[in-house]
Amino acid sequence: MPPDIPQVPDLHDAALAARLQHLLDHKTKPLGSLGRIEGLARQIGLALGSERPALQHPQMVVFAGDHGLAARGVSAFPAEVTAQMVANFLGGGAAVSVLARQHDLALTVVDAGVASALAAHPGLVDAKVAPGTADCTQGPAMTEAQCAQALRAGADIVRGLPGNALLLGEMGIGNTSSAALLMARLMGQPLPDCVGRGTGLDRAGLERKLAVLSAALQRHAEVREPMAVLAAFGGFEIAMMVGAILQAAVERRVIVVDGFIVSSAVLVAQALRPHVLQRCVFSHQSDESGHARMLAHLGAEPVLRLDLRLGEGSGAALAWPLLVSACRILCEMASFEAAGVSTAAPRA
Amino acid sequence: MPPDIPQVPDLHDAALAARLQHLLDHKTKPLGSLGRIEGLARQIGLALGSERPALQHPQMVVFAGDHGLAARGVSAFPAEVTAQMVANFLGGGAAVSVLARQHDLALTVVDAGVASALAAHPGLVDAKVAPGTADCTQGPAMTEAQCAQALRAGADIVRGLPGNALLLGEMGIGNTSSAALLMARLMGQPLPDCVGRGTGLDRAGLERKLAVLSAALQRHAEVREPMAVLAAFGGFEIAMMVGAILQAAVERRVIVVDGFIVSSAVLVAQALRPHVLQRCVFSHQSDESGHARMLAHLGAEPVLRLDLRLGEGSGAALAWPLLVSACRILCEMASFEAAGVSTAAPRA
Repeated sequence: MPPDIPQVPDLHDAALAARLQHLLDHKTKPLGSLGRIEGLARQIGLALGSERPALQHPQMVVFAGDHGLAARGVSAFPAEVTAQMVANFLGGGAAVSVLARQHDLALTVVDAGVASALAAHPGLVDAKVAPGTADCTQGPAMTEAQCAQALRAGADIVRGLPGNALLLGEMGIGNTSSAALLMARLMGQPLPDCVGRGTGLDRAGLERKLAVLSAALQRHAEVREPMAVLAAFGGFEIAMMVGAILQAAVERRVIVVDGFIVSSAVLVAQALRPHVLQRCVFSHQSDESGHARMLAHLGAEPVLRLDLRLGEGSGAALAWPLLVSACRILCEMASFEAAGVSTAAPRA
Repeated sequence: MPPDIPQVPDLHDAALAARLQHLLDHKTKPLGSLGRIEGLARQIGLALGSERPALQHPQMVVFAGDHGLAARGVSAFPAEVTAQMVANFLGGGAAVSVLARQHDLALTVVDAGVASALAAHPGLVDAKVAPGTADCTQGPAMTEAQCAQALRAGADIVRGLPGNALLLGEMGIGNTSSAALLMARLMGQPLPDCVGRGTGLDRAGLERKLAVLSAALQRHAEVREPMAVLAAFGGFEIAMMVGAILQAAVERRVIVVDGFIVSSAVLVAQALRPHVLQRCVFSHQSDESGHARMLAHLGAEPVLRLDLRLGEGSGAALAWPLLVSACRILCEMASFEAAGVSTAAPRA
């Protein structure tokens, strides 16, 4: 393991957890009646170390990269769409742009390794490791040095951003393939359980994707160590998200996880530093077929189930107001005592 | 059926539906990849009759009333909590107050039939039909005249409010009992499938509730016609919501349905005028045990599943930003053509 993977401390704090639970139980509502919102309130309170957690300056960061595998026909879309969508994110016309605007999320787009040169833009961070990963059926998607560079870049980007909440999104034609490979290897799951239709493959496309990914797994049959697995299968945007997640965890930010691809970065990060999961809110369960199983493996209870399969951070943005609600419930709701409301009483 | 139940026209419009689908299919995203958000966009577009629907001046209206049945021990909370919670809504400390503030929802609280006298407040509408319904194990919860009065009051309140979206909430100790009785009779469902723990009954409390509701059903065994069923089982807040729903449907507002109690008002309204369902967005599936079955009966797909069982309109408020997102996706997202993004192409 490279020496610069930071330690991520355990946030376990029984006293704070008890105080948060006490506060929730004395709000003017039947016990536990806000369901999952109360769970979010507890988690965010513990993550931020506060009984009155306030989410500040939320940052949506979308990491983009291209994949050598794309040339093998694993996606319904051509690879040039990665760069085109980066322009669309920055131009304000993509789903994540619209949703970030709705919820006042600062939007940063990161070129982690897009194949083509991108025009400079105030909202674009140039952290290009290389113009796309290598074809992982032929060798590793990236070198060890590239992988370490991507992790450092992800950490540096987070370090430079304000606030205490990081929402993660991604773009990269072919990246459900990388995510599926990471899942298959790190979870020891049979490949067909990990591979889905991505952006919309038909049955023949899905069979081709399975065959290509099966070859990639065989090519790297001996690779087991998380960082080496990440380097073997890519992509640059996923590796950079691993660095971002680790750094955000160290800084005790709330990490809002999007769909299948971002979850695969969490899978790598938690294999390195298990306590990152304490900071992760899993925004939704995607329609991509492997995601439900990946979430179960991570012990994650997704907030939304809306049959999304877009990526970009769109699910994280859609779930965001529910995190804000959880904090407001904790900070703004009256207690039975303060409001002069009678509590439930045991009856004869 | 009283003559003043308005007609609710069918919103079926194949041409508009096709235009909405075309717009969604040409946004810069894989086909259908925004899942349920696209379904919301279609429904709201059809409800408002626009390809560029915009939700304006959303109104959260919380109807409160007391129930004669409460004296029979069907709730974990004492009846005086209804009035206390009305004061809490108006004071800003209740969950719905907090969430309405978060989402800029205008909050109106309606005294539909609270047992005690309530102090005047700018946010409170006095539409009290009577100080609580009668005990429906002894006779009808309300007279036919009271029921008609409640429906008219609900319609009048909606008529006086601006905007094109109505979010419904309720408060009334004992009102899961009324909702369960409406469900049992109007859906022909066995009572145990309709009765849950409400705000938190224990096992003994649940058995007592079942026995009381069983007696109420038997007392009104012959009553089948929706308005008569509503009068038999109450409550005033439910009847007033039926009137509000019918009026909102006539005015072509989007109706955001909260949990089990509000859904029971929709159940009555759609029994009278089936097309109201075209305007209803079911915000969540509640943890109250009968709600899933009631939603299935209504053909409703809830937006959220967060194990809520609070009422007040809290679920409707939590789902609200997702409705806004659906409209923004339709209005603000770029098309493939406009953004210069390549579409998915069939491959060899």
